[in-house]
Amino acid sequence: MNQQITLDTIIQAHNRIRPYVHRTPVLTNQTINDLVGASIFFKCENFQKIGAFKARGGVNAVLQVVANKEGKAITTHSSGNHAQAVAFAARLMGLPAYIVMPSNAPQVKKDAVKGYGAEVIECEPNLAAREQGVEEVIARTGAVLVHPFDNDRVIAGQATASKELIEDYGQDHPFDTIFAPVGGGGMLSGTALAVHYLSPQTKVIGCEPEGAADAILSFKSGKVEKAPYIKSVADGLLTNLSERTLAIIREHVSDILTVTDEEIIAAMKLVWERMKIVIEPSSAVALAVVIKNKSKFIGQKIGVIITGGNVDMGKLPF
Amino acid sequence: MNQQITLDTIIQAHNRIRPYVHRTPVLTNQTINDLVGASIFFKCENFQKIGAFKARGGVNAVLQVVANKEGKAITTHSSGNHAQAVAFAARLMGLPAYIVMPSNAPQVKKDAVKGYGAEVIECEPNLAAREQGVEEVIARTGAVLVHPFDNDRVIAGQATASKELIEDYGQDHPFDTIFAPVGGGGMLSGTALAVHYLSPQTKVIGCEPEGAADAILSFKSGKVEKAPYIKSVADGLLTNLSERTLAIIREHVSDILTVTDEEIIAAMKLVWERMKIVIEPSSAVALAVVIKNKSKFIGQKIGVIITGGNVDMGKLPF
Repeated sequence: MNQQITLDTIIQAHNRIRPYVHRTPVLTNQTINDLVGASIFFKCENFQKIGAFKARGGVNAVLQVVANKEGKAITTHSSGNHAQAVAFAARLMGLPAYIVMPSNAPQVKKDAVKGYGAEVIECEPNLAAREQGVEEVIARTGAVLVHPFDNDRVIAGQATASKELIEDYGQDHPFDTIFAPVGGGGMLSGTALAVHYLSPQTKVIGCEPEGAADAILSFKSGKVEKAPYIKSVADGLLTNLSERTLAIIREHVSDILTVTDEEIIAAMKLVWERMKIVIEPSSAVALAVVIKNKSKFIGQKIGVIITGGNVDMGKLPF
Repeated sequence: MNQQITLDTIIQAHNRIRPYVHRTPVLTNQTINDLVGASIFFKCENFQKIGAFKARGGVNAVLQVVANKEGKAITTHSSGNHAQAVAFAARLMGLPAYIVMPSNAPQVKKDAVKGYGAEVIECEPNLAAREQGVEEVIARTGAVLVHPFDNDRVIAGQATASKELIEDYGQDHPFDTIFAPVGGGGMLSGTALAVHYLSPQTKVIGCEPEGAADAILSFKSGKVEKAPYIKSVADGLLTNLSERTLAIIREHVSDILTVTDEEIIAAMKLVWERMKIVIEPSSAVALAVVIKNKSKFIGQKIGVIITGGNVDMGKLPF
């Protein structure tokens, strides 16, 4: 098991990134509480820098590359929020960033990455091409790879979101359960570690779209499995776990539950209409799991990680 | 001029409604500040009870009807947020509410009003039919009318939004200009009075859709004018001023500026994408005015009233 991310690692990560990221607000909503019969505290990372929690892990990793003089440029591959997070963090530190993005990534996301001054390298939309693109960047520039989730520094950065949630609302009355979505597992494993160290009586449940159901299989078998099929509106959650994230999740997560796209879209619409905040489909997966299984959590004090709010307004699912 | 709404009236209104409404957050956004070259503080009434500032005026009026034993039921006519506000306030006080709504009001709004326990009376979609509907309700039930804006108690309630904005962010460095949208003028006249009493060095600018441009004409002529035509996405701002609101606006507002629907929709989309909050089209009118006229306000400290967030997610204008 991964014992390299200690409580001290997470505390240091938090101190390191604090000047550069937001301590995001925690919101509650009476209508949604009444609907589920529980008391939900939403940790709103849609209000985070670059519009998603990924800023935490990206900044934590890039700051350490600089502090340890590991390289003078940064690279990663991502079609989404991690690309922006790394570009943002590299610009903060004055380093060039080379972001390998699949050619079918939305133009708005490519433009956002370029807006942070990063160079975008397009590749075929598959994992092999992405990894090859990164290898070529490294050979050409000597850049250091900051992987989207298979990286202890990134995981420790993501853990700081739950650290804040627990500090702000989980002291006198600890949370019964905290729900986080799972794609590659960076957020879920970080959440699980923060809870393990800071609120050990709290359970953590991973929340996954049925249309990218690799984590639930891997959680059961103990091996990194592939999803039976990949088709979901939750475009931030389509990746597999890594050995690293699976090990942490198997040790510290209670269960993984899945929801359909229909349930995800209904939860997303509920949040937009009732809470008046913009969240992306991947962010709605955790609330969708709570709503679907509400009879199991009646009367509980619940934390829900809202992971981001980067949505193409021209392509809403409702 | 209306001198019945004194500073003390507004302070009393605030004390009266405080247990029942939210002190809403004030948000800022670096991207939008960079875009306009000014420092904007958004008073976010989309996070208010019932999703709009109208809760303030509705609660202030209904509490006084009860305290003064003026009647045992409440009525109003409205197709929108004021209908919900009055229904909400009446339920708080345990009074029956009879809301006259035009037959073409969205079903979702009729349902919301019924959800607060009010009786909805449908009428033809014109002002004469609405007023007749209210008269019939009064004859039948003895209900007291709480007009959407032609009512000092409602205006004093709406004034509390700017009172909070000034208390929270306008003390050490007063705002240069505060922008509020104008429909019937309840919010704009309340804003103007709060600023007059609490931040007299601050200018107030009214913001109006070109497709409902009655206030700008009335402001110039000194008489309540009708709009040349009525067609705007800002569905909360289609009403005329009253003599009462016009008098306050003429005395305490510096100017009224108009924007097109295209400019309103662009500002609305900008807020959704960048601030990650849901605002209704009427709420975007003030920011649209700031953006359109940004050269006039460079370097200023600006307040913008975000009036509400009740949007039909199935009918977004972008």
